[in-house]
Amino acid sequence: MAEINIMSYETVALDDERSALVIIDQTKLPSEVEILHLTEQKDIWEAIYLLKVRGAPAIGVAAAFGVYLAAKQIQAESYADFYTKFKVAKDYLDSSRPTAVNLSWALNRMEQVVLSAQDKTVPALKALLHKECVAIKDEDVWMCRQIGEYGLTVVNDGDGILTHCNAGQLATSKYGTALAPIHLGRERGMNFKVYTDETRPLLQGARLSAFELFADGVDTTVICDNMASQVMKNGWVQAVFVGCDRVAANGDACNKIGTSGVAILAKYYGIPFYVCGPTSTIDMSIEKGEDITIEQRPAEEVTEMWYEKRMAPEGVKVYNPAFDFADHELITGIITEYGIARPPYTQSLKEIFQKKQEAQKK
Amino acid sequence: MAEINIMSYETVALDDERSALVIIDQTKLPSEVEILHLTEQKDIWEAIYLLKVRGAPAIGVAAAFGVYLAAKQIQAESYADFYTKFKVAKDYLDSSRPTAVNLSWALNRMEQVVLSAQDKTVPALKALLHKECVAIKDEDVWMCRQIGEYGLTVVNDGDGILTHCNAGQLATSKYGTALAPIHLGRERGMNFKVYTDETRPLLQGARLSAFELFADGVDTTVICDNMASQVMKNGWVQAVFVGCDRVAANGDACNKIGTSGVAILAKYYGIPFYVCGPTSTIDMSIEKGEDITIEQRPAEEVTEMWYEKRMAPEGVKVYNPAFDFADHELITGIITEYGIARPPYTQSLKEIFQKKQEAQKK
Repeated sequence: MAEINIMSYETVALDDERSALVIIDQTKLPSEVEILHLTEQKDIWEAIYLLKVRGAPAIGVAAAFGVYLAAKQIQAESYADFYTKFKVAKDYLDSSRPTAVNLSWALNRMEQVVLSAQDKTVPALKALLHKECVAIKDEDVWMCRQIGEYGLTVVNDGDGILTHCNAGQLATSKYGTALAPIHLGRERGMNFKVYTDETRPLLQGARLSAFELFADGVDTTVICDNMASQVMKNGWVQAVFVGCDRVAANGDACNKIGTSGVAILAKYYGIPFYVCGPTSTIDMSIEKGEDITIEQRPAEEVTEMWYEKRMAPEGVKVYNPAFDFADHELITGIITEYGIARPPYTQSLKEIFQKKQEAQKK
Repeated sequence: MAEINIMSYETVALDDERSALVIIDQTKLPSEVEILHLTEQKDIWEAIYLLKVRGAPAIGVAAAFGVYLAAKQIQAESYADFYTKFKVAKDYLDSSRPTAVNLSWALNRMEQVVLSAQDKTVPALKALLHKECVAIKDEDVWMCRQIGEYGLTVVNDGDGILTHCNAGQLATSKYGTALAPIHLGRERGMNFKVYTDETRPLLQGARLSAFELFADGVDTTVICDNMASQVMKNGWVQAVFVGCDRVAANGDACNKIGTSGVAILAKYYGIPFYVCGPTSTIDMSIEKGEDITIEQRPAEEVTEMWYEKRMAPEGVKVYNPAFDFADHELITGIITEYGIARPPYTQSLKEIFQKKQEAQKK
């Protein structure tokens, strides 16, 4: 472990010279750090399908790089020929994880480049696609860095920070969302003490967050989810940072199961609770958390996964919701790339979108 | 599973005819139900040492039966000879788990029988020891049944009940403490819906509570610890019952790690939170929860136990406290064999002990 520093790698990178998508195989973490150089489309498809690369932003970037690499190899005499071949490659990658919104979003954005450049030569199209996929990644890094910058305004060097699940560098191109203030602070020589809930049933906290934080030289302590209360009671936590899968217009924040519990504990102990995420996760068409359907996952994740044998009696029922939501009343602030929204969220989230619109006009 | 009903067995039983201690091997649960008939002292010692029988009350009863079985086989001509041989057997069993208070307590009680009957013949001594070990078990069953009776006064048939860890029949002779109202209710044809936290890191909830409840025909659902908030939010829980390892004079209740978090969630959702335990766990010499030293356990329980490979990066820190305590302000009632103490506990716990004294005078 000691000699490997993943922070010198990136979660998703393009090696244009070798025509390869470069990723860390996340299915092998934390026990093995394997850097994959993927040049074949079927290997890129499989990497997304098998969650070797995971996290919505990271998947989007990987797909954009993937379809660019496919486009680069296209031999075509005409625009029509090029587009047909591009579309096959795009649809192929799009089938790797059909429900991942960022996957389609990034691939559609790449397709849009081709569709809006029908007068261009094949080499010019390839150059435009290169520019676009690099831009998709750059924007992702910018977004994360911005969240990190805003996050750093609410904590002090040396603070204890508790996090849940993995909303980190491994889920994005760089920095992460909830972990962005920690990684960015680290770049600047700051030293936080981070407590990461292991996050049952899939243990993303113990496997991924602990891995990337420890690799970045952060003072990191893994705890079981049910130990967060004691850690807070000990006075070790000055702020909670969590990611989000979806935020409703009233500020209710849907995230990995257990988030609502952490929010309630933080409120009880008087600890600020921050939700970190890009504006793309804020869905103003959803009024409140209750309107978000919670995905139920297989019982075996709880009773069998990771275990050599079954750890609950055969036949017993299991409830395994993938997400819950932190009620807006429990949230101190929602940290986005355009600033921190604070209560009342019905108002402040609108203001964040106004800032975004203004920024995009410039 | 379907054809095995552990409720027709007892956690700890004496088969006097076959001169055997009968236990369920709890190390094999929930995947195998193996009933052990132990006749050799070394096997009884090992069963306690290896946690084949566990839970403070159950260990005490097993040790009492064990030393009786040893005494039964003693060939002695005189009282002195008998006592010497008895003492060897007693000290041997006492060494199986040196820090288990109930083990010493039960064995000392058995020794006291011998010490206070120096005028008796060897057969008479054996008869007195038989009577005493049976009494120790009967008192344990009585204590649990009483807790069950009082517990049933605060819930209604059909209620949803959430529990944490295993304070059940498997930790006592029968019924358990926190699970006593559920098992006793079941005997009376009541149907509760029980949610059992899996209870990381050692999973006593998933392995033991789920097992004994399911075997008793109780509608049982296993959840990860971090899902309790969502289950409560769904409106599925009408009461929380947990056990306790130690209760301070102000009502702070020390119990398996995670208990304080469950208490905070219950308060937030307006759900009554009950601590169940015999008066022997109430320590009036301890003023408050903060005065109880919390045992720290090995990191490997979190990062490696149950797993085929390490689930957190090598070298990362782990915090693994065995217990925490529910603040008395979060506790609706403390259910004992002499009634339910309610706030303010500094007063009501004294009253419980007065009731106990009065009952013992009779």
